[in-house]
This record gives sequence, structure tokens and C-alpha cells, in this order.
Amino acid sequence: MRAPLIDNLQYANFSPCIFEQMRAGGVDAVHVTIAYHETFREMVLNLERWNRWFEDHANLIFKATTGADVVRAQETGRTAIFFGFQNPSPIEDDIGLVEICHQLGIRFMQLTYNNQSLLATGCYEAEDTGLTRMGKQVVAEMNRVGMVVDMSHSAERSTLEAIEHSTRPIAITHANPHWWHAALRNKSDRVLSALTGAGGMLGFSMYPHHLAGGGACTLEGFSAMIAEAADRYGAQHLGLGSDLCQDQPNSVVEWMRVGRWSKVIDYGEGSESHAGFPPMPDWFADNRDFGNIRNGLLAQGMPAQDVDGIMGGNWQRFYDTSFGAA
Amino acid sequence: MRAPLIDNLQYANFSPCIFEQMRAGGVDAVHVTIAYHETFREMVLNLERWNRWFEDHANLIFKATTGADVVRAQETGRTAIFFGFQNPSPIEDDIGLVEICHQLGIRFMQLTYNNQSLLATGCYEAEDTGLTRMGKQVVAEMNRVGMVVDMSHSAERSTLEAIEHSTRPIAITHANPHWWHAALRNKSDRVLSALTGAGGMLGFSMYPHHLAGGGACTLEGFSAMIAEAADRYGAQHLGLGSDLCQDQPNSVVEWMRVGRWSKVIDYGEGSESHAGFPPMPDWFADNRDFGNIRNGLLAQGMPAQDVDGIMGGNWQRFYDTSFGAA
Repeated sequence: MRAPLIDNLQYANFSPCIFEQMRAGGVDAVHVTIAYHETFREMVLNLERWNRWFEDHANLIFKATTGADVVRAQETGRTAIFFGFQNPSPIEDDIGLVEICHQLGIRFMQLTYNNQSLLATGCYEAEDTGLTRMGKQVVAEMNRVGMVVDMSHSAERSTLEAIEHSTRPIAITHANPHWWHAALRNKSDRVLSALTGAGGMLGFSMYPHHLAGGGACTLEGFSAMIAEAADRYGAQHLGLGSDLCQDQPNSVVEWMRVGRWSKVIDYGEGSESHAGFPPMPDWFADNRDFGNIRNGLLAQGMPAQDVDGIMGGNWQRFYDTSFGAA
Repeated sequence: MRAPLIDNLQYANFSPCIFEQMRAGGVDAVHVTIAYHETFREMVLNLERWNRWFEDHANLIFKATTGADVVRAQETGRTAIFFGFQNPSPIEDDIGLVEICHQLGIRFMQLTYNNQSLLATGCYEAEDTGLTRMGKQVVAEMNRVGMVVDMSHSAERSTLEAIEHSTRPIAITHANPHWWHAALRNKSDRVLSALTGAGGMLGFSMYPHHLAGGGACTLEGFSAMIAEAADRYGAQHLGLGSDLCQDQPNSVVEWMRVGRWSKVIDYGEGSESHAGFPPMPDWFADNRDFGNIRNGLLAQGMPAQDVDGIMGGNWQRFYDTSFGAA
């Protein structure tokens, strides 16, 4: 079987059109975001929408829960859809919902989304107090059932403590190195070294606010950063997490940033004059463009085997060992 | 592998003691009630409690979802626990929750519990209007995903319409023939003929209000009724659904009867002077007593093969074909 192509983070305004693009782009698996600020019951409504898509477009996509589903996707010419949360809101204050959500197919959960949560501190808070009492319990429960801790939107200390406290490798599904682009959402060398040193995975983001030069970032610049990261951390710990928000109206980025936690607008990584979704770089507009990235990495002189791993093989291996019971 | 022993309905106050009794009685599988009047979110709390039991007593019980789990139970010396609802309250007014509940392991759902529901009419209503608009849609959805329609507490016309409308065999998990004991909860010969004629299953109840003579019903009388039912409907369509409510406080029978739908007490099958759970017959107190029933059936002169089927083989075969996608 050829090396798989996996994008480990998308929150597009999914539609049959996008599912067709996944197939046109040869994307074998996508980790999609199911919830930001939703309660458990609201999150279930999002699952119901996916169930309808799986029923209505069974020739294009299917619900995936194990690493073996990536192979099944390749064998059946479809895209395996994995589920994750960008915030622990759906587990409310109830640790029992971790296993329930795992039974419903959730395979990744961020402990925070920018703000302080019940579990840890987000990257936009002034003070980072690390994992909370509940946070430590929930990480242990996630380890037990096979749900991956994702610290993409978390603050430095919280992230380091999650890496330390977790008995299984964790992930930063969508972020870039801070040494390449000093965004609040990008990760320090210390964090990335600790993450990968513990067997964890970093997914590179193509979201413009995470890119050096924003939407004007060149493919060459992005690829050179990945080659450098491979030198620093080992190519086997790297993958893609595009953060593709294709076709979303700007009301959605407002929901992502503000949810119901504030009565005033918060622009997050944007600004009042650039409040909406930023325009994507010209080399990555949708699921048909992963070939550009593959070519960009090969043009850096990276070994084909490393490129195969970064384009999906590494996530597949991570899925194989992360999604089952401990 | 020996013929399995399956009880297809219990709502005991489950505990490690009862799980030990299941093992002592050689019970391979039990269908347990997860919800009566609970909302979806409340029902999930009940699932969480079961998840804790599965985690803490993995040597005795495990969560079961397929017919093959009965064999797994026999091979590992444990009891397979299957989930069901006695009322559609947990799906609220949301047909998408049928598949969500199936994903969470629910394998049986009654369309009504005594009262009119959003789906059909219960056996205590004065008028029976059959399947509702939503009821027909939900039956089709249950057929699609592999959740068994259970009409134990439903009214006559609704039950006949469910048998007719369902494209897969349905079940009456816990009731007895009305010709044996004319309780409102017991089923007419017409219903039982239609049910079994369409490949459906009847589970015999040991709940005293469903027994001729109540708690004083003799094992011989109960067994003779089953032998007569086998003659009328075919032994292969018969099984057990004890309705065991062991160790439950009387507050639970009040919850079952009244939920939150009434501000006044309703005694259901009981009465003001006998408001609580009725005492069980002396030949069936708990999970260790199924041998009495087996012996009672054999004493009727029934073929051993038919007795094996009634004690569990028939439910296992029904599970094999009922719990997967259509």
C-alpha cells in the first residue's frame, strides 16, 4: 500500500463539494473538529450532522476510529474521517464523558482553547498555572481509553505538564515552531523538543496567522521550516494539521474566538481591521493542494521516506498506537 | 459451545453482588434497562455508571453489542451486558439520536412505556392511534442502524402496526400471553401470532403482575404456559425476559410509573394498598434460579433442543441478525 496522505486538522464548512475535493486530492484521512464551545448535548448535534453525511456520502467518506481505518480508506477509495474536540467544553465537568465521547468516536481533545479551561491554561491567558486537579485526572482517563491529548491552543507550562503527566505520547495537531514565526499560537523549541522527545506528534498548520509572512508565506519558506524541524526533532514526529477552514463564514471564526464566554468581541489572532478568516496562501487552498507540499518538501532535498512520513505515514503510526485502550 | 443462558430484560439495582450472582447462575448475557423517562443527557449518566462497573468488574461483566459477544462471554466466563431503553424519552424529539444511541451501544428501544409517546401508544391509554408520523420514521431508522423495536409496554394496535411497519423482526422482550393471565401488560393471541409470524421474539416475564396467580404462580403453571406458547407460536420465537427488579427500592417503581409526567401518583399494575414492588415467586428470586425454569420446561416434556433455545439460544440467534446495519 502506498504511503497514506493524512491531514490531522480541518474545520472546513464541510459539504459534498469538499468531500469530492478530498477524493480528488487523494486524501486518505482527515481529523475534523467536532466542537469548540459546545455543551455535550450540542456536540452530539454535530455528530448527528456527520452521521447524515456518512449515510448520504458513503461512497466518499466514512467514520473512522482506528489506525486500520486509514488502510480501509485506501482500499475502498474513500476518506477516513476522525473526530476531535478543540476544547473540553463537551465533557462539561464530568470525567465520565471522556469515555462516552471515546465511544462516540472522539480521538483527540484539546485541554484548552486559548482560555483557561477546567483542565489547563490556554495560550492567551496572562498567567499559566499548568494542569488543574481535574486536568490531571482527565489526562489519565484519556490515556486509559485512548483519546489523544492535544495542546495546540494551550500555554507553555500547561503543555509541558501535559507532556510530562501523560503516560502516552500527546499531540500538537496544528501549530508551527515559534522560532520560525513568533505567533502566540506557535510553539517554543522547548515545548517541541519535549513533545517529540516523549514520542509526541506535531502537525504543521497552514493557517495564515501561523505562517511567517501570513498568507504571503511561500511554499519554499514553509517547506524549509519543516526541513529544519525534521533536523531538530526527527522527521518521524512530524505531520500535517492544516487548520483548513475552507468555506466558513466569518461568523464561525467569531464563534471559535468568543463562543459564549464573552459579551464583547475578541479578535484572537486577527484584529478589528482583519476580523474574518485570513486568505490562505496560494499553494494551499483546499484538499487538492497537498501535492504542492509534497513537492515543496522534496525540493528541500528531504529523503522520500521522510516526506512520506510527514505527509501521513507518521500520523498513521501514531493512530495505530494511540486510539485503543491502554 | 453449550447453549447459552440469556435473560433479555432486567432492571435490578445492579451491584457487584448481582454480577456475582449472574456468574453463579451461569448467565451468559443480560439485556439491562438503561432508561425509562430520562432525557438524552440523563441517560448518558446511566451509561457512565455502567462504564464504571465495566471498568471495576471486568472479571464479571463486559459491555456487549453483537451476538458474537455471547460467545465471547462463554469463552471468558463473564456475563455480556446488552443495553436497552423501555421508553423513547432519551431520543427526545430528535431522530438523529437513534443512531447516536446505537453507537453508544443501545440495542433495544420500546416505542412506548404505558403512555402515549411521540412514537406510539402505550398499553394504559384509553385510545390507541397506532404509530405516529415520527414513530414510522423512527422504526425505519431503528431498522437501518440495527436497534430492535420492543413493544412490551405498548397498546394492541400500535404493536400490530409496529410489526407490520418494521422491515426487520421486532421483540416483546418481557410479557406473557393474555390468554394465560389477563393483565393489561400481557399480549393478545393476535399480537403474539403476528409477532412470531414475522420472525419476532417474545420474552416471558417473571414479574408477578404478569403471572397467573401473581407471586404465588407455580413453576409448573409458568412452564405449562410456555409449553402451550411453543405449540401455538413455535419454540424458536420464545425466550426469557424476567423483568427482574431485584434490590430496587420502591422509589424506583414510582419513577418507572410516574417519571415526571404526572403530579399525582399512578399505581400502574399495583394499587394503593400494594404500591411497591411485588414479591417474586419462590422459584425465581435472582440470577441463580434459571436452572429451576430449565427443569420446569423439561418436566413439561419439551424437547431439550427447544428448551435450550428458550433458555438463550433463540435470543442469541436473534441478536446475531438484529444488531447490525440493515
